[in-house]
Amino acid sequence: MPATPASFHTIALVVRPNTAGIEESVGSLLDFLQATGRRVVFEQATAEHLGLPGIAVMSVQEIGEQADAAIVMGGDGTMLGLARQLAPYDVPQIGINQGRLGFMTDIPLEDMLPVLGQILSGSYEAERRTLLEGRVMRDGVAIHVGMAVNDVVVSRGAGAGMAELSVDVDEHFMYNQRSDGLIVATPTGSTAYALSAGGPLLHPTLGGIVMVPIAPHALSNRPIVLPDSSQIVIEIKRGRDITVNFDMQTFASLMPQDRIHIQRSPHAITFLHPEHWSYYNTLREKLHWNEYPSTDGKV
Amino acid sequence: MPATPASFHTIALVVRPNTAGIEESVGSLLDFLQATGRRVVFEQATAEHLGLPGIAVMSVQEIGEQADAAIVMGGDGTMLGLARQLAPYDVPQIGINQGRLGFMTDIPLEDMLPVLGQILSGSYEAERRTLLEGRVMRDGVAIHVGMAVNDVVVSRGAGAGMAELSVDVDEHFMYNQRSDGLIVATPTGSTAYALSAGGPLLHPTLGGIVMVPIAPHALSNRPIVLPDSSQIVIEIKRGRDITVNFDMQTFASLMPQDRIHIQRSPHAITFLHPEHWSYYNTLREKLHWNEYPSTDGKV
Amino acid sequence: MPATPASFHTIALVVRPNTAGIEESVGSLLDFLQATGRRVVFEQATAEHLGLPGIAVMSVQEIGEQADAAIVMGGDGTMLGLARQLAPYDVPQIGINQGRLGFMTDIPLEDMLPVLGQILSGSYEAERRTLLEGRVMRDGVAIHVGMAVNDVVVSRGAGAGMAELSVDVDEHFMYNQRSDGLIVATPTGSTAYALSAGGPLLHPTLGGIVMVPIAPHALSNRPIVLPDSSQIVIEIKRGRDITVNFDMQTFASLMPQDRIHIQRSPHAITFLHPEHWSYYNTLREKLHWNEYPSTDGKV
Amino acid sequence: MPATPASFHTIALVVRPNTAGIEESVGSLLDFLQATGRRVVFEQATAEHLGLPGIAVMSVQEIGEQADAAIVMGGDGTMLGLARQLAPYDVPQIGINQGRLGFMTDIPLEDMLPVLGQILSGSYEAERRTLLEGRVMRDGVAIHVGMAVNDVVVSRGAGAGMAELSVDVDEHFMYNQRSDGLIVATPTGSTAYALSAGGPLLHPTLGGIVMVPIAPHALSNRPIVLPDSSQIVIEIKRGRDITVNFDMQTFASLMPQDRIHIQRSPHAITFLHPEHWSYYNTLREKLHWNEYPSTDGKV
Repeated sequence: MPATPASFHTIALVVRPNTAGIEESVGSLLDFLQATGRRVVFEQATAEHLGLPGIAVMSVQEIGEQADAAIVMGGDGTMLGLARQLAPYDVPQIGINQGRLGFMTDIPLEDMLPVLGQILSGSYEAERRTLLEGRVMRDGVAIHVGMAVNDVVVSRGAGAGMAELSVDVDEHFMYNQRSDGLIVATPTGSTAYALSAGGPLLHPTLGGIVMVPIAPHALSNRPIVLPDSSQIVIEIKRGRDITVNFDMQTFASLMPQDRIHIQRSPHAITFLHPEHWSYYNTLREKLHWNEYPSTDGKV
Repeated sequence: MPATPASFHTIALVVRPNTAGIEESVGSLLDFLQATGRRVVFEQATAEHLGLPGIAVMSVQEIGEQADAAIVMGGDGTMLGLARQLAPYDVPQIGINQGRLGFMTDIPLEDMLPVLGQILSGSYEAERRTLLEGRVMRDGVAIHVGMAVNDVVVSRGAGAGMAELSVDVDEHFMYNQRSDGLIVATPTGSTAYALSAGGPLLHPTLGGIVMVPIAPHALSNRPIVLPDSSQIVIEIKRGRDITVNFDMQTFASLMPQDRIHIQRSPHAITFLHPEHWSYYNTLREKLHWNEYPSTDGKV
Repeated sequence: MPATPASFHTIALVVRPNTAGIEESVGSLLDFLQATGRRVVFEQATAEHLGLPGIAVMSVQEIGEQADAAIVMGGDGTMLGLARQLAPYDVPQIGINQGRLGFMTDIPLEDMLPVLGQILSGSYEAERRTLLEGRVMRDGVAIHVGMAVNDVVVSRGAGAGMAELSVDVDEHFMYNQRSDGLIVATPTGSTAYALSAGGPLLHPTLGGIVMVPIAPHALSNRPIVLPDSSQIVIEIKRGRDITVNFDMQTFASLMPQDRIHIQRSPHAITFLHPEHWSYYNTLREKLHWNEYPSTDGKV
Repeated sequence: MPATPASFHTIALVVRPNTAGIEESVGSLLDFLQATGRRVVFEQATAEHLGLPGIAVMSVQEIGEQADAAIVMGGDGTMLGLARQLAPYDVPQIGINQGRLGFMTDIPLEDMLPVLGQILSGSYEAERRTLLEGRVMRDGVAIHVGMAVNDVVVSRGAGAGMAELSVDVDEHFMYNQRSDGLIVATPTGSTAYALSAGGPLLHPTLGGIVMVPIAPHALSNRPIVLPDSSQIVIEIKRGRDITVNFDMQTFASLMPQDRIHIQRSPHAITFLHPEHWSYYNTLREKLHWNEYPSTDGKV
């Protein structure tokens, strides 16, 4: 499935469950897509909670194999969940937010129809986002594998004292770190948990991965941005109740000597944005970049 | 002049210059105050730019000696300037903001009359704010003295390499610091420049002074909060074009070996707030504490 | 028991367990203390792992009731554990570090005898450190009470999404916060976990408590320093696997609607330091304040 | 001049001026190089302060045109100065530190001869570092051009209030920023001033540029890492005494409406390291990554 198909014939619809009053919007979207002669299918869970008869239903795998694009109505969480599953298929995704603007769901519900019309007619900007893949090795055996759109996070349990982690990059020893944990994030993830933990923003087109320590013991432990060709290995040296998670969706419990191998996934995801879309508009609005805490009280 | 007089007979009015359309608000405030039998006087510069005849005019010094309260219409900057000058007299101050909420000017213009009515009738909360005083010593002689509501800031010139400063507190050596400079701030100043440089918030009633390094060379140089009884001495060790400023209002150029002595001023300023006023309301609104950069994209 | 007794007759000895080669140091300390006619007692666990016959043994409670001072040989962790237990009795404590300098155990083992001689003969500086006490309320009932020398920490479980906490101070609403958790620390605790999470240093004599959010969602959520007379209430609004701990020693599992009430304890602990002791010496050495990451590569 | 020549025939020597006792080291280095049949030349200033007769002297430009490698004895500052001048010629550079380890001068003086022997015999790792170039436009005319190994820094004067800057990237508006200034840094510069101002570390092989605001007014203004193909334009909106500097070596005074255009330079510099060299070794040592502020006092 090419990332930027010449035409969008089959469109899959994914809607966040339990969204009060979404039926009307879904209805008008359905009408709009069908009126332009496209085939619309519902993702399975979406079909179940919406219960609209007469619309074909597909599993995410079938969507991956057959759809030309997936439209997500919901928030960034909904889009994140789908993106992880669709990653092997590279079906382009379009995000419509409900309520508040998302970093990924950046088309407002009220502008949905004209913007989608524009995108589906071929006027769009396709943006590729990298993913991470990881595997947890214990005694030479992979006990867990995972994929992350945002981040792979190693963290200690709540009552467990600091974790001690040893990090190697491309077979060079980087450091031993004592902290609450370590976030390894994509550019997409740099606006999520990594940002809360003090990480920098990474532009989506940067070929980079950022490692952000969480509450590190050594005050000079700073976030570090690596090329996304890096092979990262995190070994658990000490600590109890340590876990690793991928986008907070899949988890593995870890023991000392376990090693997590992390690298860029061969897959990527493609977001479609309206033309003249700007990443910075989203940043400014989400981060209140033009609102100042004070005016003239600042010297 | 007591900080919380039983009655407010003489009220001084200070208005930010060059404020378009302020005349109407000043007029209704005048009417309101005079209708309750109070004597209203204009601060000199205010009188000049407003040009309303028939209202008595006083210098800031006369206001300090004769007024029972000063009402400031403007922003935090206007209030800051007045507070520095009124500090020796301890005339309580009431801040009315124009446009956006200030940390100090926390009464909205549109609510002005009922809130002032309440305060002037004796229903208020008086809040004391500490000030800093400093003197610059060169060869045993004080070459500059200053007072600060917000902060005393030592900083390097733009093209001058790092400053090297040596800091003593209560005659104990604290550290040599290489940095762009050092901010010594009151709780009031903790929401101003110190906050931008990474300092913590200090509650107004905390008996503390915060020292915040600006872009320090040593990554473990953190803001430190001292009791406000501390005697701080900053000595210039190395660096060119170094200056010290008090609230960005008065300045002195510094040379190596100069020492700045900083301590809490014997004076304080008193702000009057409406009853049930909350410092945290202002913080929340100014710092967007209930607005989140994203919702569900965060793990 | 006064914080600074005129004479030190009964001295309790507390030694970190499993410290290789400590017997010799303990022996010379015993000889030294007994040679000056003092009564030396071992804390119970210390007696068990050291197994020296002929020395009286006391529980921590008995030490609290009967000893004039407690000497701790170990690290800050050993001292922290004892300080929590001795807090109700206010027996002054003297800390001797083994291996590396501690924030609390600030007398090097090799200088032990002359420094102790000086302190016990009355040449010392007594330093009071505040403690926090907290109680967890559920449905109007206190389900856990605790005391902290360093900090009270509310934090989410590792696989549990952000915690949402609501904070009130002195019956004023401060904020709703989404984060990994919240640290409420004493000045003593400001050099521990709070520092790793980005908090400021608080001088031990500051009458303050610092609240440091851990990886807060809102980027403008900054550490805030409150007067130590503050009544802090943290309510769990949302989140799973949330716990509260006191100095990482006692824990309670929390549920939504639980409230943690935190305030300064009526108890305090007293550390005895040699004369001319300086808090800043310890800070400089522990935080590498005079070692710079680079010299001339910095512009 | 290829970045990694098959043989190193002509070697230029650059030595930091005013380095006490350097003559002996220079002498043994000369002997060593000449003994292997290489031609050694002195950079002009080096020749003047060392005053060794019988050694050919070249300007930096001649070195750029004729030398196969340049050996720098000094600190990162010496290397930085040379690298800027040699950038157009791409002569590989080898850094020998005197005193303390540098980020760029990473061969210790005492290991100099065996390590150089190894490198000059062809066993080395060549590392390419990107540079930035900038030009200041006023009324359509370039009034200043510069090149930076570390960073291009726009900053306000010491007594001048905040600067207001408007930033565009690739013709997209990023933000208006009020701050003390803005650092645009290469990966090389990410360990210099940008680090002090709170920026992340960028691995030298990352194709990125980091923008780090200095004491920004908006608390959500975070460092952002852009691909190094980005075209950055910074416009001065407001502020007095604003300057731009390139590696703190060349300066221009700025006025409102001036625009600074910044992009990756077509030139790059090449550092030669001994085989098995590791960037992380340098980071760990310079940033004290394995030294912790405390041990067991941390919870």
